[in-house]
Formats: sequence, C-alpha cells, structure tokens
Amino acid sequence: MPSISQKGRNMPESPIRKLVPYAEKAEAKGKSIYYLNIGQPDIKTPEVALKAVKENNIEVLSYSRSEGSDTYRKKIADYYAYHNIKVSHTDIIVTTGASEAISFIFGSIMDPDDEVIICEPFYANYIAFATANSIKVRPIISSIEDNFALPSIAEFEKLISSRTKAIMICNPGNPTGYLYSKEEIEQLADIAKRHDLFLISDEVYREFTYDGHSHYSILELEGLDEHTIVIDSVSKRYSMCGARIGCLVTRNETIRYTVLKFAQARLSPPTYAQIASEAALSTPQSYFEDVKKEYIERRDTLISELQQIEGIKIGIPKGAFYCIVELPVKNADHFARWLLESFSIDNETVMVAPAEGFYSTKGIGTNQIRIAYVLNKQDLIKAVNIIKEALKVYKD
Amino acid sequence: MPSISQKGRNMPESPIRKLVPYAEKAEAKGKSIYYLNIGQPDIKTPEVALKAVKENNIEVLSYSRSEGSDTYRKKIADYYAYHNIKVSHTDIIVTTGASEAISFIFGSIMDPDDEVIICEPFYANYIAFATANSIKVRPIISSIEDNFALPSIAEFEKLISSRTKAIMICNPGNPTGYLYSKEEIEQLADIAKRHDLFLISDEVYREFTYDGHSHYSILELEGLDEHTIVIDSVSKRYSMCGARIGCLVTRNETIRYTVLKFAQARLSPPTYAQIASEAALSTPQSYFEDVKKEYIERRDTLISELQQIEGIKIGIPKGAFYCIVELPVKNADHFARWLLESFSIDNETVMVAPAEGFYSTKGIGTNQIRIAYVLNKQDLIKAVNIIKEALKVYKD
Ligand SMILES: Cc1ncc(COP(=O)(O)O)c(C=O)c1O
Ligand SMILES: Cc1ncc(COP(=O)(O)O)c(C=O)c1O
Repeated sequence: MPSISQKGRNMPESPIRKLVPYAEKAEAKGKSIYYLNIGQPDIKTPEVALKAVKENNIEVLSYSRSEGSDTYRKKIADYYAYHNIKVSHTDIIVTTGASEAISFIFGSIMDPDDEVIICEPFYANYIAFATANSIKVRPIISSIEDNFALPSIAEFEKLISSRTKAIMICNPGNPTGYLYSKEEIEQLADIAKRHDLFLISDEVYREFTYDGHSHYSILELEGLDEHTIVIDSVSKRYSMCGARIGCLVTRNETIRYTVLKFAQARLSPPTYAQIASEAALSTPQSYFEDVKKEYIERRDTLISELQQIEGIKIGIPKGAFYCIVELPVKNADHFARWLLESFSIDNETVMVAPAEGFYSTKGIGTNQIRIAYVLNKQDLIKAVNIIKEALKVYKD
Repeated sequence: MPSISQKGRNMPESPIRKLVPYAEKAEAKGKSIYYLNIGQPDIKTPEVALKAVKENNIEVLSYSRSEGSDTYRKKIADYYAYHNIKVSHTDIIVTTGASEAISFIFGSIMDPDDEVIICEPFYANYIAFATANSIKVRPIISSIEDNFALPSIAEFEKLISSRTKAIMICNPGNPTGYLYSKEEIEQLADIAKRHDLFLISDEVYREFTYDGHSHYSILELEGLDEHTIVIDSVSKRYSMCGARIGCLVTRNETIRYTVLKFAQARLSPPTYAQIASEAALSTPQSYFEDVKKEYIERRDTLISELQQIEGIKIGIPKGAFYCIVELPVKNADHFARWLLESFSIDNETVMVAPAEGFYSTKGIGTNQIRIAYVLNKQDLIKAVNIIKEALKVYKD
C-alpha cells in the first residue's frame, strides 16, 4: 500500500480526546463521569441566535461570500467598537471557527520550516495547525509558580532566529486562564517591532475576565497595525461551539489579501451558522453578566475546593474557564486514566485532561492536569472531592 | 513590515471571482448580468432539509463529533449502498465541504514537494489546496477534441516520479462535464496498482449523469481498497452549497486514522449543516429525477444554441453542469471582461469563466471559457445569443 505522509504521522492526537476510550468503557460499566476535560460549556446559547435560525426563510442554501457578508462584518466591527477597539468591517475575514482562522494565518505568513514562538502550556491544537502547515512551534515555558505570567523578554530573544516569523499568545489563556496585562502586551509589541515579527493573539475568551481585570487587546496597540492579527470566535462567547464561526482581524492589507485567497479556495463559511452568529451580536448585555457571574462562582468554588487538597499547586485563573493544577503524582496521564478505570465514589468518577499535551517541550507538565470549569458548582464540588479521595489511595 | 509567506504569494486567485469587480461595475451602471460563471445552482434545496433546520430544538449548540455523528454516517453508507457501493459508516469522515476533505487528504498523503497527477482542465481550487499544502500538481492535458476523455496510460507514466503519491480525477468533471467509463477507471486502477499510488476521485457531481450513462465509482473497483479515496459533498447534490458539508470515504484505515487527526484539530463540522444534510438523505427520488431532467434540458438547450455560433468548439458534457467552449478569439479572459465592460443587448450581458484558470500548464485554454448551465432555459438562450452577437463585433 502507498504510504501516508510524514506530516500525517507527525500530526498529534488530541490530548483531550486521548482518554475518551477509557471514559466510554467506564460509562459502559455504568459509571457516571464528571467531564472536566473539554471546553464545551453547558451554558445555553442566546435565544436570539437560536431563534434566527429557526425563523430563516432560505429556499436555496447557496454559497455566501468567502470573507463573510458585509452586514455581519459591520456588526462585528460595532461589537469591537463597543469594546474600545477601532476596526473597519473590511479588516475582518469571517472563518469556519477560530480553528480555520489559525490555519489560514499560519499558511499566509509562514513557509515550511518557519517558526512561531508560543508560551507554553498552550492550546494543544496550535501544534496540529503548525504541523499541517509544516511549520515549527518554538515554545517558551511559563510557569505555574508565576501563575503563567509572560516570560522575560530575554527568554523570547533567545529563541528568535532568521526563521522566526511571529509570536503568538492566547489571551486569556487556554489552558492557563492567564490574562496578560497592558504592560505585558506592550512588552510583546516592543519585541515584535524590534525584530519585525507578526504578533498573533487568540482572543476567543476575551469576554471572560474576572476580578475587575479588563481585557487588553493587541488591536489597541498604537503603531503596530502591520504586525497585529487577532483570532476570534463565537464558540465560547455565545456558547455556540457547534456553529463553527470565527474570524480574523488585522489592519494589514497584504495579510487580508493573502488570507482571502485561502478563504476563496474553500468557498464560504457555513450559512446557517452565520445567521446564528449575526443574530448573536444582539444578545443582551445581561446575558454576559449572568454568564460571567456563573463562571466566577464556579472558579471560586473550584479553587477553594482544590485548596483543601494537600500537596497540589494551582494556577489561579484570571480569565477563560480553565485551570492548571499540579498534582502530587509522577504521571498525571496515568492518574487520569486510573480515575476512569479504577476509581469511583458512589459509582461516579471524573475525567480531566492531562496537561502534558499542552506542552511541546518533552517532560514538562507531566504531573499537571487541566480542569475546565464548565459544570455547575454542585458538580464541581463532587468532582473535586473525587480527585481528593482518589489522591489518598492512588499510587504511581 | 514582516513579510508574508512565499506560499501565500503563490496562492492563486480564484479564476471564477477574478472578473467580479467588472461585474459589479456593470451592475452599478444598471446592466443585468446572466451569471454563467459559477457552479451555484438556482435549484431549490429539498424541503425536508430546510424543514429539519427550522424545527431543530437545540438549546446548547455544542461541538459535534469530529468525524460526524454515527447516525449521519450510517445514513450516508445507506445512500452509497443504494448506489451499489458497499462501505461501512466507519469508512466515512464528515468534513466541512468537499473542500476540507480535499485539503485533509492532500495533507494526509503528501509532504511538501510531493506530487499528484491531475488531468487538466480541472477544478481550479485543487491548485489552491495543493499550494496550501506545499505540494505540486503535475497536469496531464486532456483535450476538447476528445471531449476530455482520459489521456493514454503512456502519458501518465511519463509523469510518474519518485515524488508522485497520487492520481486525482474529478468524475463527472468540473469544468469538462466528462464522465469516465468503467474501462477508463480500470485503466487508472491499473496504473495506481502498478506504481503503488493513491487514487483520489472527486465525485461531488455523481448524481448528475446524462444520456443513460451511469456513474462508475472508484469504490466499485476490486482489490484496490488501500488505494482509493472518494471526495463527496452535499453542495451540488441537494443544491445546498451554503451548508458546508462533505465527506471523505476510504476503506484504508491508516488514512482514516490520519485524516481524523486533522479533523480533530478543527474540532467538528458545522452542526446545523449536519442536521440539514442528514435530513437531505430522505429527499424523495423524484426530486433527483426532476433536477436531472431540468439539467438535461438546459444542457441540450445550451449545446444547440451554441452550435449556431460559427467557429467554436464544444466539449459535450455527459455529466455535472459545466461545459467548456473554445471561442474564435485569442484571449478569452479579455473577451469575458469586454462582455462585462463594453457589450450588452437591451442592457443585458453575460458573465462567463475564462478557462485558463482551470489549466495549470501555461498558455493552454486561453481561448476557452467555462459555462455553468445553472440558469433556466430562457435565460440560457438569451445568454448564448449575447455571446453570439458579441463575437460578431468583438476584436482582439
Ligand atoms: C484558545 C482556543 N483557540 C481556538 C479554539 C478553537 O475555537 P473554534 O471553536 O472557534 O474553532 C479553542 C477551542 O477550544 C480555544 O480554546
Ligand atoms: C469538482 C468540485 N469539487 C469540490 C468542490 C467544492 O465543494 P464543497 O462546496 O463541498 O466544498 C466543487 C465546488 O464547486 C467542485 O466543483
């Protein structure tokens, strides 16, 4: 048989899904599982978005514009304006999820073997999109002791080579929950400018910031219009992950022209999803306040429950809905599997994501897990209790 | 400013959209345009598909399975069974349009600089997906004199190198309308087997075959399960291009495992579109009979009208809804632009796709256009008349 590509062999398996077969077996045996492993919120999608789709009167479901409709992009520009970010609708290209936006931008600015610097731990699929584009991720370790704050400029400069094309951040971070300060963003801007690099910011969790901190977007930077590219998505903001709509925002015209060629090749983003996404922009502000309040309560519950477990370290999240926890175990991957296979309380157990998959440096993060606080408080309390009791008996 | 990638520079502009600015200007001046340039049918989407979306009762629009739901894939397998193709639902991976399936397969089987052989003229975006994956398309010219029949085995063998990983066909063809015979498919199978190559067949137009010819899929070949990969889509079959649902079918497990990693990275295909697509599989057979009858009448009308024009050659289509026409002009691109800018009858003109963009060999097809017969007969008659009159006065 003809052989598959080296690239295909190099494609990573999703660290979030790796344990799925064990979870399925546990469920088949009648165990209930608290799923803390994936960023799939249980929050309801805004009624206004669901309604728009139900009331559509399409007769011929035709291709839409490759870059998204003008009306939708104008409303997105208004959304940003409301959040103090000035962009024109022409600065926006609508994509099939943030996922596609990341893929398009990697392809538009990097050739095979070019490099992008990313602070780890990072969203695992960045590696997959990099691999698909035959480019390299150069990781910089940020540490749980600092709550995953931005590493020093010197650390970045150590990694910059003639192949470096961009620095990428996720703000607020998945899996860290870290929210970069204005000063940190300005430091990044400084490096990007001095070394003539693109600065990519994945801001899909921009709405979720806590403790009075506000989000500072790279689009607010002055004099960096040619460098900055924002990745965005409706997935988490409106709890509509299944829509598959995101976008890419940049004031750099050459990039937009290039991305548009990728976008035209795949014809258009999904039409029904665009209807839902456009309508979602009319979601009342109270929805976000309620959702934020809910996430803050969940985070506080999660943290205070976790703090009762001996020997663990927690990266306190200031945004998004993830939290990295370092456990008193050698191998968190093994522990997570063991939770599914061999542990339960009242026939209930927990599924967490081993954090190793969020690091690309080998051997780092092996004793960490990522918890997505996408369940209600009662469930979080029960789930953390299961982890606590499990750690008492687990041996690795 | 940091520079974009060479790959990004190499990405082709869509030949179908190239003339759009001229069309917009013509419309702004009050001209009406018959759009024969794009494969966007005017046919209504089956009611059953539209209804399923309107009646959905989703509350949390969550990610779906990366490979598509089991129920949907089982129904797709039933669809193939009905058409004499035996596949299991596990042989199918649901994608965001055929577009994504092509991209995934290129990435799964080819590394940068690997090669795929494709008969030209071919669907222009193949080049875009190849460029995005840093791979090379090696074209073999099929000619209008033969109605674009399969070139000889010897022609294929001339192009096969150590970098060749696959042969790809589009059956029935866009832009040629050519339908490969069982014998031709068997010839391809023979080459694929002898040289250990993958055989990719884009069968998105499989439903549209005329004159009593039936479609022969590469999945019907015996003993070639490890080599064959089919690309499919709901876009044209149910006139639901805006859904963005396609799939990839192969009995080769290693390929599926590899493609699934690409699929997991982008999380899932669009949910609403999957609802529509699953429901579309219950479209009554009479829908297809009506649609096919309509396309045959359009094709016959188009051909008989075209045959009244002096000095042209027509590739008679046996499937799909495209037709390549060679014009008595030097540069069809210029002629197409001139139609929009400087010609009209009763303030009406025509937009066609210059065929040059469907060839990757430079200098070929420059006097050809592609006509998509996606308009009703009256409009086709008027449109061809405009072309006929235009050719009488056009000078290049
Ligand atoms: C940081 C980050 N970026 C991008 C994505 C992908 O989002 P989308 O659903 O818009 O493709 C996710 C999804 O979890 C994410 O966490
Ligand atoms: C031959 C061919 N393949 C693939 C596609 C892309 O189809 P989809 O809309 O499923 O992405 C088209 C669209 O016109 C096509 O003509």
